Amino acid sequence: MQYPEAIAKLIDSYMKLPGIGSKSATRLAFYTIDMDEEAVQQFADSLLRAKRDLHYCSICGNITDVDPCEICRDPNRNQEQILVVEQPKDIMALEKMHDYQGRYHVLHGVLSPMDGKGPEDLNIAALIKRLQKSDVNEVIVATNASPEGEATAMYLARLIKPAGIKVTRLAHGLAVGSDIEYADEMTLQRAVEGRREI
Amino acid sequence: MQYPEAIAKLIDSYMKLPGIGSKSATRLAFYTIDMDEEAVQQFADSLLRAKRDLHYCSICGNITDVDPCEICRDPNRNQEQILVVEQPKDIMALEKMHDYQGRYHVLHGVLSPMDGKGPEDLNIAALIKRLQKSDVNEVIVATNASPEGEATAMYLARLIKPAGIKVTRLAHGLAVGSDIEYADEMTLQRAVEGRREI
Repeated sequence: MQYPEAIAKLIDSYMKLPGIGSKSATRLAFYTIDMDEEAVQQFADSLLRAKRDLHYCSICGNITDVDPCEICRDPNRNQEQILVVEQPKDIMALEKMHDYQGRYHVLHGVLSPMDGKGPEDLNIAALIKRLQKSDVNEVIVATNASPEGEATAMYLARLIKPAGIKVTRLAHGLAVGSDIEYADEMTLQRAVEGRREI
Repeated sequence: MQYPEAIAKLIDSYMKLPGIGSKSATRLAFYTIDMDEEAVQQFADSLLRAKRDLHYCSICGNITDVDPCEICRDPNRNQEQILVVEQPKDIMALEKMHDYQGRYHVLHGVLSPMDGKGPEDLNIAALIKRLQKSDVNEVIVATNASPEGEATAMYLARLIKPAGIKVTRLAHGLAVGSDIEYADEMTLQRAVEGRREI
C-alpha cells in the first residue's frame, strides 16, 4: 500500500525544504491535514504572495516589497556609512540593536571557491557602483566570522581601500555573557588580540 | 525596521507547524523566496489539494482519497482480523512488512485523561459497530508502548473480550539488532516476561 497521491505529493513538497527529511515531512503533512481549512488556505496564500511580492532592493539587495527598500528610501539615515552583510536576515539582527543609522548592502553569499562562488556571483558590482556615485566614507564589513566570511572581508578591503574609503570589520571576541572556559581557541585568540585598556 | 508583510506572514505560517520555532521559520521563509516559482506553486497546490482531497475512511479511519479506503475495499484481505493502531502513519509502517493480511482500524489518538481525551474522543464507537456486523475473530491492539497506549489496549480488551472475540497485543521486547546494554528497564522486563523456549 502506498500513501494516497495527495499526501505523497505534500510530503515531497515538505522534503524540498532545507533540514526536513522524510520522517519530518510525513509528520508535517499529517499535521497539515488536521489543520483547519482556513489556516491551510492562509499558508498556501502566504507562500504564493511571498514569492510574488518580494524582491531584492535594486540599490542594496535587501529583501523588500517596494523598490528601493524602506532603508534606502529613508532620508534620515546616514549616507556616509554602508554596512555590508551576507544575507537580508543579518540586517534584521543588526536593526534590532537600534543603534546603527547608516545604510546596508547585502552580498547574498560569501566568496567560496570550494562551492564555485566567485566575486561575480555576489552583489559586489552594485556595491562598487554605489561607492562611486555617493559620498560614502566608511564601509563596515559584517560578514560572518567563518573562513569564507574573513576571505570576503579581505577581498572587499583590497577592492575598496584604494579609493580612499575607510574599510572596517566588526570586532571579534568573547560574546557577552559567555564563559572563557567554553570559548574556542580562535575566539580567545581574537579576544586577546583585540584587548583594550580599561 | 520590520520584515516586509509578505515575509512576516509566511514566517507566521511556518511557525504554526509543529516543531518549527521562529528561527527555523525565518530560515524556511527566506529559502522559499529563493525557490523557483514552479516549486512554490506546486507546494501551495499540494497543501490545498491534500486538505481538499484527503479524508478519513468511513469504515476504518485510515487516511484516503477514496471512501472506503483501498484496504477496506480489497476483497482479498482477511475479514477476520482487525489490527487497531493509533494513527494512519502506523498502518504505513505495518504494511511495509508485507506480512499482515487483515484489516485495520485507526483510533486517532489514545486515552489520555491528562489531556482530557476519553473513549468518546477516539474512533472506538465505529470499531464496536464493525465488530457487531462482521465475523471478526481477533482484534490485534497495536497502540504504542507508552503508558497511554497500554491503558488504551487494556480498555479495548475489557470492552471487546466479553463479545467472545480474541484480543491480542503486539509483543514487546528487545528490538532486533539492539544491545541489551542500552535497553531501558521496562523493555528488559518485558523481554524477560515474554521469553520463549528455543
